[in-house]
Amino acid sequence: MTTNFDAYTTSQFKVIIPNTLNDHETLFGGEALKWMDEVAYITAIRFTRNKMVTVSTDKIKFLKPVKSGTIVEVFGKIVNVGTVKIDVLVDIYMEEMYDDCRQKVITGQFTFAALNNENKPIAIASILQKN
Amino acid sequence: MTTNFDAYTTSQFKVIIPNTLNDHETLFGGEALKWMDEVAYITAIRFTRNKMVTVSTDKIKFLKPVKSGTIVEVFGKIVNVGTVKIDVLVDIYMEEMYDDCRQKVITGQFTFAALNNENKPIAIASILQKN
Amino acid sequence: MTTNFDAYTTSQFKVIIPNTLNDHETLFGGEALKWMDEVAYITAIRFTRNKMVTVSTDKIKFLKPVKSGTIVEVFGKIVNVGTVKIDVLVDIYMEEMYDDCRQKVITGQFTFAALNNENKPIAIASILQKN
Amino acid sequence: MTTNFDAYTTSQFKVIIPNTLNDHETLFGGEALKWMDEVAYITAIRFTRNKMVTVSTDKIKFLKPVKSGTIVEVFGKIVNVGTVKIDVLVDIYMEEMYDDCRQKVITGQFTFAALNNENKPIAIASILQKN
Amino acid sequence: MTTNFDAYTTSQFKVIIPNTLNDHETLFGGEALKWMDEVAYITAIRFTRNKMVTVSTDKIKFLKPVKSGTIVEVFGKIVNVGTVKIDVLVDIYMEEMYDDCRQKVITGQFTFAALNNENKPIAIASILQKN
Amino acid sequence: MTTNFDAYTTSQFKVIIPNTLNDHETLFGGEALKWMDEVAYITAIRFTRNKMVTVSTDKIKFLKPVKSGTIVEVFGKIVNVGTVKIDVLVDIYMEEMYDDCRQKVITGQFTFAALNNENKPIAIASILQKN
Repeated sequence: MTTNFDAYTTSQFKVIIPNTLNDHETLFGGEALKWMDEVAYITAIRFTRNKMVTVSTDKIKFLKPVKSGTIVEVFGKIVNVGTVKIDVLVDIYMEEMYDDCRQKVITGQFTFAALNNENKPIAIASILQKN
Repeated sequence: MTTNFDAYTTSQFKVIIPNTLNDHETLFGGEALKWMDEVAYITAIRFTRNKMVTVSTDKIKFLKPVKSGTIVEVFGKIVNVGTVKIDVLVDIYMEEMYDDCRQKVITGQFTFAALNNENKPIAIASILQKN
Repeated sequence: MTTNFDAYTTSQFKVIIPNTLNDHETLFGGEALKWMDEVAYITAIRFTRNKMVTVSTDKIKFLKPVKSGTIVEVFGKIVNVGTVKIDVLVDIYMEEMYDDCRQKVITGQFTFAALNNENKPIAIASILQKN
Repeated sequence: MTTNFDAYTTSQFKVIIPNTLNDHETLFGGEALKWMDEVAYITAIRFTRNKMVTVSTDKIKFLKPVKSGTIVEVFGKIVNVGTVKIDVLVDIYMEEMYDDCRQKVITGQFTFAALNNENKPIAIASILQKN
Repeated sequence: MTTNFDAYTTSQFKVIIPNTLNDHETLFGGEALKWMDEVAYITAIRFTRNKMVTVSTDKIKFLKPVKSGTIVEVFGKIVNVGTVKIDVLVDIYMEEMYDDCRQKVITGQFTFAALNNENKPIAIASILQKN
Repeated sequence: MTTNFDAYTTSQFKVIIPNTLNDHETLFGGEALKWMDEVAYITAIRFTRNKMVTVSTDKIKFLKPVKSGTIVEVFGKIVNVGTVKIDVLVDIYMEEMYDDCRQKVITGQFTFAALNNENKPIAIASILQKN
């Protein structure tokens, strides 16, 4: 059975350019949520190699505005494997382009359930054993 | 001071077409989150007519998959006005195109803080009095 | 037969952010037309609950430029129900973010025809009776 | 003064792929309108080499649905030069990918006004003389 | 057999607006590459009227940054017809909006192979003869 | 001076969903090129922490079609540091969702030049020394 969660982290680097900005010229929160959901989903799929559906998100915190002209890393990792659900933590880090400054700016957790071929929930343990 | 929250509901109807879908041919969760954030933000702005920033979301629940070829309404309303924050509830309803069936499919709450011209938090009450 | 058109209005609120702008930093007209078409289509579908296709638009007037950093409501309503076609009026209203100023900025009418399962035109009256 | 309108036609070829489709798997009308507006605007600018704003569209007719997996040409040309306005006709032609079949599927006219540096209307003749 | 390559040029005019820009407020290179690929593909399809797949690009040169508020023409033409492949040259020209200045800013070549109904390569000559 | 190139790899995982597809229901090549350019640019910036501009791409090879419903990793790494230019190799790997199959599907190299504050080329060595 798979136990090393670190082998399943998923990263998505993005540049903060005009088509990602809100009316304050910082990253539009909805765009950030879209990226987080995609990264959370890929993290869950790559860990289980099974059909997964998003059940819910926990509290998502917007810690700092993300400035135009920076780079962000959207980073997902498995943090909890339950009986029928898994939790993926997604953090967004902002990096200045021209120095090494890097800090966490948005963070939140996404919960997924595994489905079998008839779209019924199945035990995570049975999936991981199979892999 | 404004007290009738119903006067500040915000609606965004959308058609579920191919560019909104995930690999299961249902609405991509990240797209839904993007719409919810935009609607929550507009709801908060229209209520306060003041600069607002997203602080966090509470648990967001994906109740049912949203099928291709349906219509959704993303609906935001003020549910709580605190000292320095307001909470906006956003529900997504799915409507079948060709009958009157309508049901809630995604639901979650967004919290915003008000900022003054120097980007410092200000009391919601002081803003509402001014309006 | 349905006669209360007001029950079928459709609204889509949007924030005017950089990815919606033209080279004058006002709302790109093509983006506005895209929103109007989506809202007109949803209005027509929700009124008839039948397959509808866009036949034409009438004159669409761009009354004022829509500034960056405002909110718009794209608002559709049924204005005429003919034998085989219905007309949907779509108005776009611009709201300042930080005061209650609101004005109509774009307006136009869209005409739809109803189709049956074989993609042949059918009488609107027969559809509305069925609903 | 410029009189040969044909020297100012503007073309935009596009492939009809999933992200351009509506729920009937044909080209979403709003996407077509967005392309037409961009082409009309470029046609007007290239003819006058002056700041232009969209004033209105005339009747736009959707003659046939545009099928997925085809190619379209969005084609703009000047059809009328008035005292202070110019009219641009935009036709969309659909081409089958694998044979030479080509037909007009959408057609409409866009009207533009010329503005000077103070955003006041100016005579088209004075602009064309200058060029 | 078709020999006049000039009959198969393909053009796509675009306005350089905020949603096309990078963090230096010039055209995002990835956006340019996306446009070039679409134009190259359409050029290849219109010449052969046969299923084509992209095999590779040759060196693509970014000659000058493309400024915000300009117009570009993405222009594709057949430059070589081999036994089983064809080469399409795609040039992007930047035009100032308000004067007649026009210059080449990006240039590159795309190579396509023709496939038959079983997705096996077929000779270009046999396709052109058929047309 | 920085010499460990591996510390500067950049990854962008993506799901292949309908809005990324071409008319054959595989990944649209232009979309892939857009992702590769973004990843190449971020790789170059993170290595130098200096203003960089894309000079050219070398041959980009499309090795296999990327199927709908897969996951891709767009992976960039520094492969050559010249006097005034650096080369970034970008590979796209396709992963099946539900098994561990992973293979390279697109590969190409991007070349960047470093600019100083006056937008003049500067020596890469001088930048790396500073960092």
